[in-house]
Amino acid sequence: MEWNLKLSDTAQKMRASEIRELLKVTEKPGMISFGGGFPDTTLFPKKRIAEITKDILLNQGDKSLQYSATEGITELRETLAKMAEEEGIENVSIENIIVTTSSQQGLQLTAQIFLNPGDTIITEAPTYVGAIQAFNAFGANFWTIPLDENGIRVAILEEKLKEAKEKGINIKFIYLIPNFHNPAGVTLTLARRQEILQLSHRYEVPIVEDDPYGELRFRGKKTPSLLQLDKIGNVIRLRTFSKICFPSLRLGWITADTEIIRRYVLVKQAADLCTSALTQSIATEFIKRGYLREYLKKIRKSYKEKMKTMLNALKKYFPKDTQWTKPQGGMFLWIKVPEFINTSELLKEAVEEKVAYVPGSAFYPYQEDKCHFRLNFSYPTIEQINLGIQRLGRLLERKIQK
Amino acid sequence: MEWNLKLSDTAQKMRASEIRELLKVTEKPGMISFGGGFPDTTLFPKKRIAEITKDILLNQGDKSLQYSATEGITELRETLAKMAEEEGIENVSIENIIVTTSSQQGLQLTAQIFLNPGDTIITEAPTYVGAIQAFNAFGANFWTIPLDENGIRVAILEEKLKEAKEKGINIKFIYLIPNFHNPAGVTLTLARRQEILQLSHRYEVPIVEDDPYGELRFRGKKTPSLLQLDKIGNVIRLRTFSKICFPSLRLGWITADTEIIRRYVLVKQAADLCTSALTQSIATEFIKRGYLREYLKKIRKSYKEKMKTMLNALKKYFPKDTQWTKPQGGMFLWIKVPEFINTSELLKEAVEEKVAYVPGSAFYPYQEDKCHFRLNFSYPTIEQINLGIQRLGRLLERKIQK
Repeated sequence: MEWNLKLSDTAQKMRASEIRELLKVTEKPGMISFGGGFPDTTLFPKKRIAEITKDILLNQGDKSLQYSATEGITELRETLAKMAEEEGIENVSIENIIVTTSSQQGLQLTAQIFLNPGDTIITEAPTYVGAIQAFNAFGANFWTIPLDENGIRVAILEEKLKEAKEKGINIKFIYLIPNFHNPAGVTLTLARRQEILQLSHRYEVPIVEDDPYGELRFRGKKTPSLLQLDKIGNVIRLRTFSKICFPSLRLGWITADTEIIRRYVLVKQAADLCTSALTQSIATEFIKRGYLREYLKKIRKSYKEKMKTMLNALKKYFPKDTQWTKPQGGMFLWIKVPEFINTSELLKEAVEEKVAYVPGSAFYPYQEDKCHFRLNFSYPTIEQINLGIQRLGRLLERKIQK
Repeated sequence: MEWNLKLSDTAQKMRASEIRELLKVTEKPGMISFGGGFPDTTLFPKKRIAEITKDILLNQGDKSLQYSATEGITELRETLAKMAEEEGIENVSIENIIVTTSSQQGLQLTAQIFLNPGDTIITEAPTYVGAIQAFNAFGANFWTIPLDENGIRVAILEEKLKEAKEKGINIKFIYLIPNFHNPAGVTLTLARRQEILQLSHRYEVPIVEDDPYGELRFRGKKTPSLLQLDKIGNVIRLRTFSKICFPSLRLGWITADTEIIRRYVLVKQAADLCTSALTQSIATEFIKRGYLREYLKKIRKSYKEKMKTMLNALKKYFPKDTQWTKPQGGMFLWIKVPEFINTSELLKEAVEEKVAYVPGSAFYPYQEDKCHFRLNFSYPTIEQINLGIQRLGRLLERKIQK
């Protein structure tokens, strides 16, 4: 079969991502990976999950093994609505919530709901690699806005929105990662959040707020979410259990205006009918029994320690001409090297030295950045962090001295 | 927000499906539902799943709670390759297999890989409602071929393929449900399978073989699958654990040429990154410990008994002017009523009588059929089958006598 003659335009354009190829390499023995955004495997609450799962199967096995509603099981949506209330978000009912099969599915459904091929969206640059993939799969045209230490640069955002209006371009949405940005580490300030909401209102553009890391704050005060500050229903917030519980739950959730949630339900029905009632029940019980709160304390403490270790190691081993972020939380540091170094090319040498990272170009829709890379600190051990940063530091020293 | 100004063309066209609205109704007390394609909840192997899950969490919890490869965990793909070998399919390696988050996702990914809006595909009429939804979500143009008691009418299929070739229309694929067709109950004969493969080869059109029910044969001899008979790699076979194990695993798998499997992997990565390593590990152990074989025996026996009960009840309670299929397996009967009865309209009255089915129109992409409905016999109890068919019979008697 000449498959190429049969493929859709978007399928023909899809290429394997660098991050994916990288993750294959990281399985080799002796490799230290700062690549993926993996939680710390050793902290997984295995016994508690085993306890919960047994209880569910023996007490409500009938329901939890069967098909369930596309929008998610009621018990979980009620629990999530309650969590939103505790966070200070007003007027969230279960009708505002859909459970998704991972927040990656949330991104894909968002693309599917809003994008015709060629439609324009606004994202930060850099931005999350999985979002680029999901939006590319539906033919997005990216307008990108740079970040500074306070998040997306709002003045440039406003210029772009004005330009779009003048040119009659219908910006479908603005995609933002406001907390402990992946990969840039920055957190959007309260003042900017409010300005962005005003722009969203004035220019009538929805905001997609992706918040996987909000619960992983190590220092400083929580900034209210865009969803919480939004008084007109323009914000669609995506969250996930992958970073606060464990990834193989494959659970995310979207909170938004009921009208758009109904659209998500229709599109999700065609995508996978429903999310697992079993993993949804596990997540519900994990929250209800108070285990989530305890587990979050544990991982915050561990990740904070690991980040500190990585920052100290960077100071000790990295050459003077390099810079890095000092985020208030999350899972990543973002490293800047001198512009004559191409971090995509450097990766091959790093892998030979048995250390891996994600090159900056992966986080730009048009891959225009060559002098950054992302380091994950949640997955490796303290020893691996010290050793890996030492290896990377030596490699960079050699490059810079040349 | 004026959401309509922001939606994609396909999202604007999507409507809630009849089957979905129906399933909501069936939750009312006293309702007997012949609607969904649900397995028998009471037969679920709850204790065995609890036993397996505990073992997995305590022995390989680290791996089974973490992110996993997009194509599926190696252990499951190896087990599925071995199952294919035992079935008599040659040359299936793990490179030919991708695990999907339900076979509904398999359908969605298929649509995404092959379809630009307006592209033409060929399906049977009637065909699976979930396939219609998935293909519609990517703007499919359906050419439909009628069925008879031996499956799709091959002479008409050939005419259509010839017509497409003459007109320069690139048929993207032929979608077939060869075993115990949903909803029509018929099984495609060996001779026709071979003819279809020749047509696929001659006209260079891939075949998407959807086989959720193949293991649910109650009588007669197994017909080799199209994948098994295919010598040139044109067949993409979709299977699912929902009907042979339990739906909340949310597990399906696709077997096909390695080149097209690689495309599925790319598209799936953007769709949900990976399927749950936990549910994949449960399925692997369920097969390896021999539980699947035992469980299949149990559900085959039960569903056979239930089908027999339903056929007897139909004979006893349904008016003379109605007809129904007598399938060799699966989960459904397909009922034909006199043409002056509109089964979509009749459903409202049926629901008042506390009995539900899926009207025939749901199984046609352009909803052209009004005088059929589908009955599921796997989910209700023997008592419910007798009572529900009696209720439906009385309702039909009244309509026909009028």
